[in-house]
Amino acid sequence: MAEKFVSMRNLKFLLYEMFEAESLTRYPYFQEHSREIFDLVLDTGMRLGKELLFPCFSEMDKKPPEFVNGEVKVHPLVKVIMRECGEGGWIGAQAAYEHGGQQMPNLIMSAFRCIFSAANYSAAVYPFLTTGAAFLILSFGSKELIETYVPKMFAGEWQGTMALTEPQAGSSLTDLTTTAYPTDQGYYKIKGQKIFISAAEHDGGANVVNLLLARIQGAPAGVKGISLFVAPKLRPEGGKLVPNDLQCAGIYHKLGYRGSPITQLALGENNDCRGFLVGQPHQGLKYMFQMMNEARIDVGLGAVAIASAAYYASLQYAQERPQGRKVTSKDPTQPQVPIIEHADIKRMLLFQRAVVEGSLSLIFQCAKWVDLAHVLSGDEKDRYELLLDILTPVAKSYPSEMGILSVSAGLQCLGGYGYCEEFPLEQHWRDARIHPIHEGTTGIQGMDLLGRKVVMKDGRAFMLYLEEAGKTIQEAKGLRELAPFAQALAEALDKLKRVTGHLTGIALKGEIELFLADATLYLEMFGIVAIAWQWLAQAVVAQKALAKNPAEADANFYQGKLFTCRYFFGYELPKIEGLAARLLTGDGLTVAMKQEFFQD
Amino acid sequence: MAEKFVSMRNLKFLLYEMFEAESLTRYPYFQEHSREIFDLVLDTGMRLGKELLFPCFSEMDKKPPEFVNGEVKVHPLVKVIMRECGEGGWIGAQAAYEHGGQQMPNLIMSAFRCIFSAANYSAAVYPFLTTGAAFLILSFGSKELIETYVPKMFAGEWQGTMALTEPQAGSSLTDLTTTAYPTDQGYYKIKGQKIFISAAEHDGGANVVNLLLARIQGAPAGVKGISLFVAPKLRPEGGKLVPNDLQCAGIYHKLGYRGSPITQLALGENNDCRGFLVGQPHQGLKYMFQMMNEARIDVGLGAVAIASAAYYASLQYAQERPQGRKVTSKDPTQPQVPIIEHADIKRMLLFQRAVVEGSLSLIFQCAKWVDLAHVLSGDEKDRYELLLDILTPVAKSYPSEMGILSVSAGLQCLGGYGYCEEFPLEQHWRDARIHPIHEGTTGIQGMDLLGRKVVMKDGRAFMLYLEEAGKTIQEAKGLRELAPFAQALAEALDKLKRVTGHLTGIALKGEIELFLADATLYLEMFGIVAIAWQWLAQAVVAQKALAKNPAEADANFYQGKLFTCRYFFGYELPKIEGLAARLLTGDGLTVAMKQEFFQD
Repeated sequence: MAEKFVSMRNLKFLLYEMFEAESLTRYPYFQEHSREIFDLVLDTGMRLGKELLFPCFSEMDKKPPEFVNGEVKVHPLVKVIMRECGEGGWIGAQAAYEHGGQQMPNLIMSAFRCIFSAANYSAAVYPFLTTGAAFLILSFGSKELIETYVPKMFAGEWQGTMALTEPQAGSSLTDLTTTAYPTDQGYYKIKGQKIFISAAEHDGGANVVNLLLARIQGAPAGVKGISLFVAPKLRPEGGKLVPNDLQCAGIYHKLGYRGSPITQLALGENNDCRGFLVGQPHQGLKYMFQMMNEARIDVGLGAVAIASAAYYASLQYAQERPQGRKVTSKDPTQPQVPIIEHADIKRMLLFQRAVVEGSLSLIFQCAKWVDLAHVLSGDEKDRYELLLDILTPVAKSYPSEMGILSVSAGLQCLGGYGYCEEFPLEQHWRDARIHPIHEGTTGIQGMDLLGRKVVMKDGRAFMLYLEEAGKTIQEAKGLRELAPFAQALAEALDKLKRVTGHLTGIALKGEIELFLADATLYLEMFGIVAIAWQWLAQAVVAQKALAKNPAEADANFYQGKLFTCRYFFGYELPKIEGLAARLLTGDGLTVAMKQEFFQD
Repeated sequence: MAEKFVSMRNLKFLLYEMFEAESLTRYPYFQEHSREIFDLVLDTGMRLGKELLFPCFSEMDKKPPEFVNGEVKVHPLVKVIMRECGEGGWIGAQAAYEHGGQQMPNLIMSAFRCIFSAANYSAAVYPFLTTGAAFLILSFGSKELIETYVPKMFAGEWQGTMALTEPQAGSSLTDLTTTAYPTDQGYYKIKGQKIFISAAEHDGGANVVNLLLARIQGAPAGVKGISLFVAPKLRPEGGKLVPNDLQCAGIYHKLGYRGSPITQLALGENNDCRGFLVGQPHQGLKYMFQMMNEARIDVGLGAVAIASAAYYASLQYAQERPQGRKVTSKDPTQPQVPIIEHADIKRMLLFQRAVVEGSLSLIFQCAKWVDLAHVLSGDEKDRYELLLDILTPVAKSYPSEMGILSVSAGLQCLGGYGYCEEFPLEQHWRDARIHPIHEGTTGIQGMDLLGRKVVMKDGRAFMLYLEEAGKTIQEAKGLRELAPFAQALAEALDKLKRVTGHLTGIALKGEIELFLADATLYLEMFGIVAIAWQWLAQAVVAQKALAKNPAEADANFYQGKLFTCRYFFGYELPKIEGLAARLLTGDGLTVAMKQEFFQD
């Protein structure tokens, strides 16, 4: 069995050497913190990951939640994790002291969540989904809602969920029909159905708090008529918890991510499901989307975490498995070599490492911007929010899409064993497949990036991104060994600009369908360039550290970083050539393709 | 539930319009056949596929084989399928009349196997694995072995297997240690272990006939000391079948392909496992590899069949599922459109169709060459055998690797439903993942292509391939609409030649490790170009057919072909740019990367 699922050395490299987490303590909001405290958070995460989550990784997959008489029985670990996370303060760690939080940077908590998700993705969903839901209430809810729900959620006693999807409204949230009927009692009566809701019913907590999108009776059509509600499974009433007419109608049997129940909900079948409005009427989607950046980046984080666990499992196998000989010495009487000595295996390992550590770097970059946007104001805040706006679809999609290929490469390293349940790769591969789907499919992210983020505010977010990447290029140019990569990234960014200009030109001509037809490819190209940028930035740090003659273990680590950077520029970055060729000459093929041409 | 898993229209297009299957009946071996007989074969395949195999597709996955007291219980369908295939003559259909066969072209039987595998891949493995094993005996075995085993196998009573892999010898067959001890009784006593053997024990037939590689005691080390044996589960003795000391030690629990048991075998634990030598001593690997081309092409066929079923399931969903509106008309009061109207969904459908129909075309091309090599002699036979040699790793790997991505695109079309067991996509995705692993991993195929096939006989196979593709380019150049694609393919082939010359130049300098380091990428590039060639060839046929003003349904079908060809040249072929860039500038990164740089 694999023993390692994430690298503490790499986490610390990114947090401290790359993103200088300690520098955040200069800001009043984080001033109580220190490197020691951050290390303690990471060590605790690693201890819980190793001792609590990882040992149940396979078992939670093999014994998925059961739906019995309208209730969902989950693995007993869920209750333990929620309690541990509640008691340790991990669910609300980022919240302000006044709300029972620890004012912990998102950057540090992203590393913590990464450890949890790498140890056991399904298990990690319970506490951190609760975090997201609680923050929505904190951000937009009334004092009463906050006091009623948030402490229980932060304590790990009540599960939080995000209840958006309906049978007719998945990617198209505009078509939500769940309805909230006003009463004069301070609540709404909710009627409707929700599907694909993670953890909306289970016995690992005492209650479930659904953050639910619904349409107030008579509201405008479309997204402008959607409001946000708290609709708990049990509602507090007269000092007790009473059922809130919110029935779990079933759970889905899924490819992976099996430790977490994905539920169908029937709301108000007995006309007694009460929903409590969060904030103003008709602002629900806006509220939800203000949390969406972080939720989407966290999907990328979950993807990279799974890919990390898969990478270390395949690395361990490659180091231990003897098979074949070097192509230069085929003498069958000589012993076999560990497969890590074969170039093609090293290529697959480098690919995985490039995806994992490159994606994680981008995600931590975003996490730090979340922190900076939180503590800064005015133009500075705007700057980081715009950077987050444009990079969120990338930080969600690149790890999600490439994470699957990364895990697949890990599985391939194991040959036939990779296909068998006795090794964890096959589960990682199944688990990973959810990420391009939930929190907005890759197709939706592509349209968000190209159709909204790139063009918003006259392209200002895009310009800020180019500025950030430009800084890294300047730094790298100053290091002889990295100058060719700096040059390559500069050329890639030029190509991206050219493609962007070409596409926005189509938009200016009003050909919107053509403009967006290949948005997914644009997202893919954008993602590769962004990860190249992160690899160059890591290489700058590694190269400088190597120049200081570090101890052998550190030197090997930094050399590994430099080789992986070279891998990325040699094997991954050239993929933009084909994408750019397509994007620059798109002939509207997929727009022109008629439905009947698929008939045969 | 999806209703269609393969397109008869497309099969007939490929068989009759593209590859002119009827022309094979000019050769004496096939002279008894006709279009009517071929159609009957296809219709029977489709009937069995629809009525027998497809209905159990999901059930065989959900109720996988069970290992009970050393025996393996499989789905009751297995016995029925084996009987139907035996009675219908489908297992031995390609064999000569004198051996109980029907002298059916491999081209036609490839289509038959495609239908079966698309309907239910796991179920199709039983009869067609038997075909391969029986043909090995027919080709190299003694008259006695043939008479003892082949009729029972063709009748579907006895299962055939290929028993190669051992715990220490997967990709490295040179390290086989299973030993055959000579006796003076006309048989050998076998001792050893085999793992990952498909269907080597189950209750769907009366016996299992393993075609087994072992080393005769005292044989030379390496591949030159490997012999081929028949080692049955039960051996005929005195008119009865008696146990042959060949124990099933267990079965593997797998990611997919679950309807078929993959077994571990312990041979000769009681010193009474008898093996019967096939052909000459120490020639086993050579024999095995003479069958390997077809076995490997059949893996490609299995991959494309799964991708076909996934494609039609996602196409049906895309036609039926309303979600969202055209980007040009977002009015939420208007009804939603079926998702097939979204450009990004059409792109994912075109991608699937491009992979499925492009791969199938290449596989049928190879199947026809198998037939021609069989009935021709001298230079002509050599020509087709060389073409098969060079294209076999491509026909195995392109569908295997791209099939997974194709199914993944199909799954993505379904969004959250694609991730759920109530739709077939998730199973197809799991089933498909075996193909880059078995019958030689993709890495092994890459080394076979670049290290052996491309350079063999001074590059003659490669030249023949260029000649074949050149013919298609000439044809396409004569059609105004296709001339640009002809030009694009010519340029792609030039690029492939340049890359090949660059790499073989490295080999000539003796830098073998560097030469082969990126063989997998070379295979990928080679594959994309080969499929582009097949798409151009299909477009030529479609364009000519369209010029004859066919009926509307046919016109739509041909238009679909032309659009998919355009898709391939627009979206897939440009991927060779990045691959060529890498292959032309490879710096030996994966050779130089040290094991300790992976440590952290």
